[in-house]
Amino acid sequence: MTSRFELHQENLKKIFNPESVAIVGATKLKGTVPYDIVENILKSDFNGAVYPVSPREKHIASVKAYKYVIDIEDPVDLAIIVFPSAVAHMALEQCGQKGIKSVIIISAGYREIGEKGIEREAQIKEIAEKYDISFIGPNCLGVINTDPSVNLDASFARQMPDPGNIGFLSQSGALCTAVLDYARAKHIGFSKFISFGNKADISEIDLMFYLMKDEQTKVILLYLEEVSDGKALMNAAREVIAQSGKPILIIKSGRTSEGASAAASHTGSLAGSDEICDAAFEQAGILRCDNIEEMFNKAMAFAYQPPPRSNRVAIITNAGGPGVLTTDAAVKEGLEIARFSEETTKLLKRHLPSTANIKNPVDVIGDARADRYNAALTAITNDDAVDGIFVILTPQSMTNIDAIAEEIVKVAKETDKPIYTSFMGEADVASGIDILLRNKIPHYILPESMCKAFESDFRFHHKIKGHRFKPVKVEDVDKEAAAKVLEGALQSGRQVLEEDEAEIILGAYGLPVLKGGLAKSAEEAIEVAKRIGFPVAMKIMSDDIIHKFDTGGVILDVENEEAVGIKYQEILDNVKEKAPEAQIRGIWVTEMAHKGEEVILGIKRDAAFGPVIMFGLGGIFVEIFKDVKFRVAPLGETGAREMIESIKGHKLLAGARGKNPADTDSLVDCIYRLSQLAVDFPEIKELDVNPIIVYDEGNGCAVVDAKIMF
Amino acid sequence: MTSRFELHQENLKKIFNPESVAIVGATKLKGTVPYDIVENILKSDFNGAVYPVSPREKHIASVKAYKYVIDIEDPVDLAIIVFPSAVAHMALEQCGQKGIKSVIIISAGYREIGEKGIEREAQIKEIAEKYDISFIGPNCLGVINTDPSVNLDASFARQMPDPGNIGFLSQSGALCTAVLDYARAKHIGFSKFISFGNKADISEIDLMFYLMKDEQTKVILLYLEEVSDGKALMNAAREVIAQSGKPILIIKSGRTSEGASAAASHTGSLAGSDEICDAAFEQAGILRCDNIEEMFNKAMAFAYQPPPRSNRVAIITNAGGPGVLTTDAAVKEGLEIARFSEETTKLLKRHLPSTANIKNPVDVIGDARADRYNAALTAITNDDAVDGIFVILTPQSMTNIDAIAEEIVKVAKETDKPIYTSFMGEADVASGIDILLRNKIPHYILPESMCKAFESDFRFHHKIKGHRFKPVKVEDVDKEAAAKVLEGALQSGRQVLEEDEAEIILGAYGLPVLKGGLAKSAEEAIEVAKRIGFPVAMKIMSDDIIHKFDTGGVILDVENEEAVGIKYQEILDNVKEKAPEAQIRGIWVTEMAHKGEEVILGIKRDAAFGPVIMFGLGGIFVEIFKDVKFRVAPLGETGAREMIESIKGHKLLAGARGKNPADTDSLVDCIYRLSQLAVDFPEIKELDVNPIIVYDEGNGCAVVDAKIMF
Repeated sequence: MTSRFELHQENLKKIFNPESVAIVGATKLKGTVPYDIVENILKSDFNGAVYPVSPREKHIASVKAYKYVIDIEDPVDLAIIVFPSAVAHMALEQCGQKGIKSVIIISAGYREIGEKGIEREAQIKEIAEKYDISFIGPNCLGVINTDPSVNLDASFARQMPDPGNIGFLSQSGALCTAVLDYARAKHIGFSKFISFGNKADISEIDLMFYLMKDEQTKVILLYLEEVSDGKALMNAAREVIAQSGKPILIIKSGRTSEGASAAASHTGSLAGSDEICDAAFEQAGILRCDNIEEMFNKAMAFAYQPPPRSNRVAIITNAGGPGVLTTDAAVKEGLEIARFSEETTKLLKRHLPSTANIKNPVDVIGDARADRYNAALTAITNDDAVDGIFVILTPQSMTNIDAIAEEIVKVAKETDKPIYTSFMGEADVASGIDILLRNKIPHYILPESMCKAFESDFRFHHKIKGHRFKPVKVEDVDKEAAAKVLEGALQSGRQVLEEDEAEIILGAYGLPVLKGGLAKSAEEAIEVAKRIGFPVAMKIMSDDIIHKFDTGGVILDVENEEAVGIKYQEILDNVKEKAPEAQIRGIWVTEMAHKGEEVILGIKRDAAFGPVIMFGLGGIFVEIFKDVKFRVAPLGETGAREMIESIKGHKLLAGARGKNPADTDSLVDCIYRLSQLAVDFPEIKELDVNPIIVYDEGNGCAVVDAKIMF
Repeated sequence: MTSRFELHQENLKKIFNPESVAIVGATKLKGTVPYDIVENILKSDFNGAVYPVSPREKHIASVKAYKYVIDIEDPVDLAIIVFPSAVAHMALEQCGQKGIKSVIIISAGYREIGEKGIEREAQIKEIAEKYDISFIGPNCLGVINTDPSVNLDASFARQMPDPGNIGFLSQSGALCTAVLDYARAKHIGFSKFISFGNKADISEIDLMFYLMKDEQTKVILLYLEEVSDGKALMNAAREVIAQSGKPILIIKSGRTSEGASAAASHTGSLAGSDEICDAAFEQAGILRCDNIEEMFNKAMAFAYQPPPRSNRVAIITNAGGPGVLTTDAAVKEGLEIARFSEETTKLLKRHLPSTANIKNPVDVIGDARADRYNAALTAITNDDAVDGIFVILTPQSMTNIDAIAEEIVKVAKETDKPIYTSFMGEADVASGIDILLRNKIPHYILPESMCKAFESDFRFHHKIKGHRFKPVKVEDVDKEAAAKVLEGALQSGRQVLEEDEAEIILGAYGLPVLKGGLAKSAEEAIEVAKRIGFPVAMKIMSDDIIHKFDTGGVILDVENEEAVGIKYQEILDNVKEKAPEAQIRGIWVTEMAHKGEEVILGIKRDAAFGPVIMFGLGGIFVEIFKDVKFRVAPLGETGAREMIESIKGHKLLAGARGKNPADTDSLVDCIYRLSQLAVDFPEIKELDVNPIIVYDEGNGCAVVDAKIMF
C-alpha cells in the first residue's frame, strides 16, 4: 500500500504534465472564473486535449462540452473543478468513478467560511481517499507549468508568466496575482507556479518535494499564512536542500500578534510565536523573507548568477555618493570590500582618467561611457581577490545607459563570478534595466537590497547547503523513572510539578540536580540534611503556594542538625500564618549551591513546531534585554553550542571582565538532555530551570530551582 | 555691515529669480556641459534674457555671444561659470567688476582633486568676498527653479522636473541625476532643485534657510556627504522647523567606517562617528533616511497628504495575505490598528458581501470592483476612530484597477485624513499607480515603506514640530576653579588628569564627588582620613601608572589611623616594585562609596558636532550590550531625562526586580552639569566618570572615579 505522500508525488506528475484536462463546471460567461480557466488553458497553447464539462452548454470557447465528466469518451489525466462548493463534491465523486487521480479544486466556500465549509472539506477529502485521488486546493487560483513541452495555464491568473527557474508556491491566491504582475514587469520567469489554497489534501510539503526533483526548478519560493505541521516543514526543507542543493525562500505572514489575528480571521489558523518560527526556519536552512520584493531580490540572485566563492565584493560606480552608500550597505551585511591586486590597480590606472578613484569602490567618474565601464569591469572580474561585483550607474548627461548594460551582459557571460547591478533613477534608466533583466543580470533599486541578496546567496552556499542535520539523541537517561513521576502527578490531577518531583525527573535525565530529599517531619529533615551534608536549604512544597519566599517558606544556609529541627517548625509556622489553607506536601531539604553564573533553561511547546528549548542568561538579562534564544527540539550536533554562543551576553560565559570561562561543555550537555526530555514527553507543556548555575570550566553546573507544567 | 549669511540670503534671491543670466564659458560643442547648460536654460522657457559668454564664438544656440561678461551692455543678475577651474577665477573677477553678486560655479577641479584644487578654492572665495559675491559650487550640477514665473533650469541635468512642493539639496551632482530620473517616473515635483557641490561659499545651511522662506517649498530634502559644522546644521534645522513647520529629511552617507573612508576619498571630508550623527539629527528633529527611495517615500507623505491626527490606521485590501503583511508592518512601526465604530461596522456589513472581513484590516474580497472599494473607503474615512487609511490592491481577474484608483482620488479630495496606497504587482497595476501619483496620492511598493512613511509623518507633526529647544544652562558652577586646574595641567604639558584633579574640576561644577585629599606623606594621609572619616580608600596618583589595581596602587576599606599609616607605605612599596620608574604625585585618600547602581557618564568630542555627552549603565552593560546613549551638548530641557529613559536597561534604574527606584533626579542634574562643563571647556577631549553610583530616590549620586583627557 502506498502512502498518501507517495500517491501525491505520483499524481502530481499528471497535475503538471497532463495529456488531457477536463474543466468541470465550465461556463460560457466571460469574466467569470470558470470561463477564464478554459480560456487560459486554450490561450497557453497547451500541448494536450481540453474537455469543458458543463451541465448546460454544448460547447465553450468553440470546444465541445460534456454534460458530465464520465461522459468523456477518452481518458482524462487532470480534472479542474470550478463548480460551487455546494456541488463540487459530486463532481469529485464522478472524477473518481472516471478513474481521474489528479485534480485541482478551484472552488471557494470551504474551511475559510467556517463550520459548513469545514464539513465540505472533510467530505471532499473522504472522496479523494476513497478513489486514491490527490487534489490541490480548494480555494485556490490554480496551477501553471511553463515547460514548453506542456504549456499549461490551469489558473484564472491574468497572464501566463515566462518560463524560468523559479518554482513558486502560495497559500494565497490573491498574492499570486500580485506576484505574476510584479514578475512580468521584471521578466522573471517561473518553472512551476502553484496556488495551493486551503491545502486540504496536497500540502506545501508535497509540493516542495515535487519541486525538489523538478529539473526546471532551481529555487523554491513559498508564501505561507499558516504552518500546519512545523516539524514536517523543517524536515522537508532539510531534505530538499540536502538532496538538491536548491534554496528555499519563505514568506510567513503574521509576524505580530495583530497580524496573526488578522491571519487567523483570514485562514482560520492558530498562530504560534513568530520568534519560534524564525528559529525553526533558521534551523532548517530556510531563508525567511518579509515581503515579495525581498523574496524576488534574493530569488534573482539564486536563479540568475553563479554562487560567489567568497564574500569579497568590488563596487564600480560612476558617482561617489552611491559608491559610499553601497559600501555602507555591504559592510552592514557582513560583506568584505575587496582589496585589488597590483595588476588590477595598474590596469585601472591605465584605463581610467586621473580623477577616477581606482580603489574599491571604484569611481569611473560621471562622464564615463560604456568603454570605461567595460575596462573597469574586465580588470576587476579577473582579479582573484574579488568574488562578486556590484555595478552602480547614475544617469548623467554623458552616460550611454543601454550600451553600458550591454557591456555588463557581455562581461557576465564570460565570468563565473556573480555580477549584480543597480541603475539608479527610474525613467531614463528603464531601458538599460530592461536589457539587464532580460539577460538574467540581477538588478536592484537599492544598494541595500543588492547587498542583502548577495549575503543570502553567500550564506546559503557556504553555510547552509553543505550542512547535514543530525539530531543528537541522549541515550543514558532513565525514561521510566521520569515517566513514573509524571504519571503519578497526571493521575492525581495536578498540573504543576514542584522542585522535589521536577528534580527527580531532571535527575533521571542526567541533569546535575542538587542532592536533596522531601521531609515530612523535623526528624526526617534532619536525616536528609545529615545525608547530604551542611549547610542546607529548606523549602516548603505545596501546590497552593506560588511565592514561597514571600510566605516565609524558604530558609537558606541552615548550618547544623539543631537548626534544621528549629527551622522546620519555623517554616510550618510561617506558612500556617500566611497561607492557612495550603495543602503541605512536606519540606524539601537540599544542598546549598555555590555561587556561579546564573542561566535559565526551559522547554516550551509551540502549536506548530512542538517542543522548543529556551536558553538565556538569568535575571535582568532575560527580563530587560530579552537576551534569549529558542531552538526547536531535537537539536543537531552543533545546535546547543550555537544557542549558547548566539546570545548577546555570551561573553559573560566566555570569561569577560577577568572572570574564568564558564563550563560551557557542561551547559551544552544539559541542553541536549533537556532536549531529549522534551522530545520524550510531549505531555510537558512548559519546564523552567531557573536558575541553573554554571561554574568555572571543568566544574559543571547545578540545577537550583525547577518547575514543570503539563 | 551685513554678514556673509545675510548677504547669501539676499544674493540667493537672484540665483533663483534672475531676470538675466550669463553663461560664462559657453561653447557650441553639443554633448558638453557648457553647451548643455545653455540649451537647458533655453529649453526651460526661462522668463528672462540669456547671455552666452565665450571668447571664441559669435553666437551659441542662435543666441548672440559676448567675449567677456563685462561686454554685456545690460545688467546681469546671475552668472553661471563653466570655464575650467584653471581660468574660472578670472571669470569670477570679471563678474565682480560687472557688479554681478549671484554666481553658480559649475566647474570641477577644486578641493576634490587635492592641494592644487584647495588653493583654487581659496582663490575664488577671496574674490567672492572682495566683491560681495555669493556663489553656489564649485563642482556642482547647477540649480533649477520650477516656479512658472521664472522657469529656470540652470543645470546640466537631462531633464527639468515638474513643479512641486519638495525642495531638494544635494552635495553630490551625480545623485541629482538619479533623483531627477526617479522623480520623473513617479511624477514627483520640485519647488527648487539645487546641487551645491563643494559648498565653498553658500552652504547647505544657507540654502535651508532660503527654503524655509520659500513659499513653494513644503518639505526640505538634503543629501549630504560631509557635515562641516554640525552645530550650525543642528541650529539651522531647529530654527527652520520651529519657524516654518517644514520637515527636513537628510541622507547622510558614510555610515560604516569603510563607507566613511570611501566618502573621504570622494570628498576629502573627515567622518565623525555615525552614532553621534544619528543622535545629533534626532536632537535637531531631522528625519534621517538611508536611501533615495526611503527619502521620497516619506517626502511624498509630507508633500501630498494632510498630517494624521493620530496613529490609528485602517487597512482596506482585496486580499487577506497582504492585509496581514500590512498589519504586521503597521504594528512594527508603532501604529495602532483602529477599531471601527458600530456605525462603520454596520455600513461595511451592508455594503460588502458576507464573505468579506469587516474588521480592520477590511478585506473587500478578490472580486471587488471600484464600487465596493468606494463603499468601504467612504465608511471608514468617516469613522472618528480612524485617522489614516491604507488602501491595498492586488490585480485579480475582476479588479478594475484604474477605476479603483480614480475612486481613491475622489475620496481623498473630500477628506482631511491622509490616504496612502499600495497596488501590488508592477505591469498591470502601472496605469492605476500613475493615476494615484498624478493626483498626489502617495503610493508604495511595500506595506513596510507605507507604514514607515506614515510613522514619520505622525512623529514629525506630533512629537517634533511643536517642540522648542531650550538649552539648559547651569549657573551655579565655579568655572574659575576648574579653569585653574586645567590650565595648570596644560602648562605642565600633561594630557591626562587623574582622580585628584578631575574631582576638583567635577566638584567645581557641582557634581557629587566624594570627600578626599592628596597626601604626600603618611602623616598627611592620616590627617585627610581623620577629616573625612573612616573607612577610606587610598589610591596612588601617578601619570605613569595606568592600571592602578594591578600595581597594588589601590587599597579599599582602610578602617583606622594606624592602618592608614601602614597602607601608605605598603602602596609605595608595591608601586616601587612593579613600576620603579613611575613619578608619584602622592596618594589620594577618599571616602568609601556605599553600594548602589553603577552608571557611566562621559564627554567625547566629535569632529563635526563638538562636545557629546555619553550615558550608560556600567560594566557589562556598556561592554557587552553596548547600551549607551549619546547626546550633543548642550542638552535641552527634557534631554537628560530622555537620555536616561532611552537606554534599554533603564528599568534597572526605575526599580525593576523589587529594587527601590534610583535617584534619577540627581542623575539628571549630574548630566546637565557635565554638559555645562563640556560646553565651557572645549579643551577637554574626553572625560570618563566611571562609575558614578546612583542611590535610591532622594539619596543622590557619588562620583567614584573620574579621568579627563585633553
